[in-house]
Amino acid sequence: MNIQTPTLLLDEARMHRNIKRMVQKAQRNNATLRPHLKTPQSNAVAEQLRPYGIDKIAVSSLRMAKYYVKGGWQDILVAFPLNVLEIDLVNELAQQIDLQLIVDNTAAIQHLGEQLNHLVGLFIEVDAGYGRSGISAAEIDKIEELVHLMSKSEKLHFKGFLVHAGHTYGKRDRQAVQAIYDTHVEALGALRNHFQAAYPNVTISYGDTPSCSLLEELSAFEELRPGNFVFYDLTQVEIGSCRVEDVAVALLCPVVGVYPDRGEIVVYGGGVHFSKDRVTLKNGQTIFGQVVDWNGKHWTIPKVNSYVRSLSQEHGIIQANESLLENTKVGDVLAILPVHSCMTVDLMPHYLTTKGKELAIWDKK
Amino acid sequence: MNIQTPTLLLDEARMHRNIKRMVQKAQRNNATLRPHLKTPQSNAVAEQLRPYGIDKIAVSSLRMAKYYVKGGWQDILVAFPLNVLEIDLVNELAQQIDLQLIVDNTAAIQHLGEQLNHLVGLFIEVDAGYGRSGISAAEIDKIEELVHLMSKSEKLHFKGFLVHAGHTYGKRDRQAVQAIYDTHVEALGALRNHFQAAYPNVTISYGDTPSCSLLEELSAFEELRPGNFVFYDLTQVEIGSCRVEDVAVALLCPVVGVYPDRGEIVVYGGGVHFSKDRVTLKNGQTIFGQVVDWNGKHWTIPKVNSYVRSLSQEHGIIQANESLLENTKVGDVLAILPVHSCMTVDLMPHYLTTKGKELAIWDKK
Repeated sequence: MNIQTPTLLLDEARMHRNIKRMVQKAQRNNATLRPHLKTPQSNAVAEQLRPYGIDKIAVSSLRMAKYYVKGGWQDILVAFPLNVLEIDLVNELAQQIDLQLIVDNTAAIQHLGEQLNHLVGLFIEVDAGYGRSGISAAEIDKIEELVHLMSKSEKLHFKGFLVHAGHTYGKRDRQAVQAIYDTHVEALGALRNHFQAAYPNVTISYGDTPSCSLLEELSAFEELRPGNFVFYDLTQVEIGSCRVEDVAVALLCPVVGVYPDRGEIVVYGGGVHFSKDRVTLKNGQTIFGQVVDWNGKHWTIPKVNSYVRSLSQEHGIIQANESLLENTKVGDVLAILPVHSCMTVDLMPHYLTTKGKELAIWDKK
Repeated sequence: MNIQTPTLLLDEARMHRNIKRMVQKAQRNNATLRPHLKTPQSNAVAEQLRPYGIDKIAVSSLRMAKYYVKGGWQDILVAFPLNVLEIDLVNELAQQIDLQLIVDNTAAIQHLGEQLNHLVGLFIEVDAGYGRSGISAAEIDKIEELVHLMSKSEKLHFKGFLVHAGHTYGKRDRQAVQAIYDTHVEALGALRNHFQAAYPNVTISYGDTPSCSLLEELSAFEELRPGNFVFYDLTQVEIGSCRVEDVAVALLCPVVGVYPDRGEIVVYGGGVHFSKDRVTLKNGQTIFGQVVDWNGKHWTIPKVNSYVRSLSQEHGIIQANESLLENTKVGDVLAILPVHSCMTVDLMPHYLTTKGKELAIWDKK
């Protein structure tokens, strides 16, 4: 491989192991797996999900939905609160595919009711503790008002309730994630029971990679929407969602400086390549990446860790263990696992597979 | 303005005030201003520097240099440690323009000596306390070795010493920044004196927006390379480099949720728009942006602050003051100052000026 600049490497074998594990878990739980494809941002990667029987996906923007429509996806959930300013794009998409949107307020439903030309499915986003978007699961009167409002428009098809338990990302063990999951089963289950008489097909949809990775029993929900699991990353390793061996993407970075006196290596690979996302390890150290052993074809996990301790716009500073320091020189290339694979992917033009094939990433600009 | 998705707004009047101030300061100090254009990443913005007599620029990668060559720039310093794997691009650029590179090790100089086809100017990058890249200013023997190695190649023209005092970003007052500057004057001045007999034209180059903004007396250096000053951002406000009124870019974000119970607003504008960079205020609060008052044409600074407290991939969560909360509804657009303008610009396809004009940003992909 002729690497000259920071390059995103994809180990497809690792990715397929991750996908297969999640597909099997969803099957065991009799749940539909609707992968959140904000992680790969790539039709070339998405295509590799089809052989597993996957035909429904989630995305994080209407523009991203449009990109995946080009890849032939026909059932897309935009798992982001409806942006009413993009109503034209909603109509464009709703004409072409089975479009699912999420809403948590009357204004959004009113906009849709007035301006939609085509049928869309609507999930009510519920907040059961995360505190980002969604209507509180306890506000049953307001939720009934939303459902009632939907029923006034022939273009709006009430599908059920959706929740993202994003606060699992702050947990570091299975018990804590289980506790969050249990809360959501109770809250969303109660909503389903409340509306099931009037809406027999009401479904509840749950998503987040930590829950779906750490827990075995997920059968309370009809639909699971993890995203990050296709690649995982150091944050998920730290949460316990995966082993470091499961992380399927690494950034190849040219070495531009080796500083034995301070035990550090500087690579061409900074915030504009990794993103500035970080994770704090159990020992209190905040890191931006972790070096793995790269032999030009595959990477393996070294016995002693070397972390990226700091990122500037284009520089990455690695606290290198002794062996790495001794064996690295200017002009070498290091492979570094990202802290947050979704954010790193977002910055890269394409994947280079470990077999040397280029897979395009959505050019959102 | 028809805003539908996160859009980077540029107030050119603010930008020109920032540029003018720095140009005048460089003139008073008899120093060459070589702006670091990793901040705007735009030939359309760079073009607006020419009327101030600016004809030398700095960039943070060889690829970025290539972009600015297309904009007609003929004297470019790549202020990033030489990546020897891009030697072909070095040769391509060196044939076209007056190319300046920085090095801090023998390997890089040897690569250049062996593979260069055209003349390049070389600065030795010095580390006088920041600890990122650069050779320690105290290692005079090693520095002499580097200079000697350069002298063996006709293609290498030793220009002088360059330093980036990036640790000023960790300071929060003028005195602390002054102390860092003074250390660098001493270290770099000593190097200049040491080499001046053999190299009468040896120059010393200093860069960083906090020093160049906070200090008046900068005459020890022949060249100043601040970058961020053209736009500034909340980090620079916090350091004290500028007033919040000086920040020249803001991200326009559609409102997708208003949550009076918890005093929060959710916007379409997340880590893939702002970047995940953050700054910690003096009160200990970590923020990702600050809301300003936007009337559809201009923005002004409200009396009570509302901060972005958290970013997901596409969501921004704002802790809103009472007035903002009362006056904001789903479908509105908020203007938000970024924590780190360079990183936000890097994620955006173009600027929209407050006068409604689009200015292209480098498409690095």
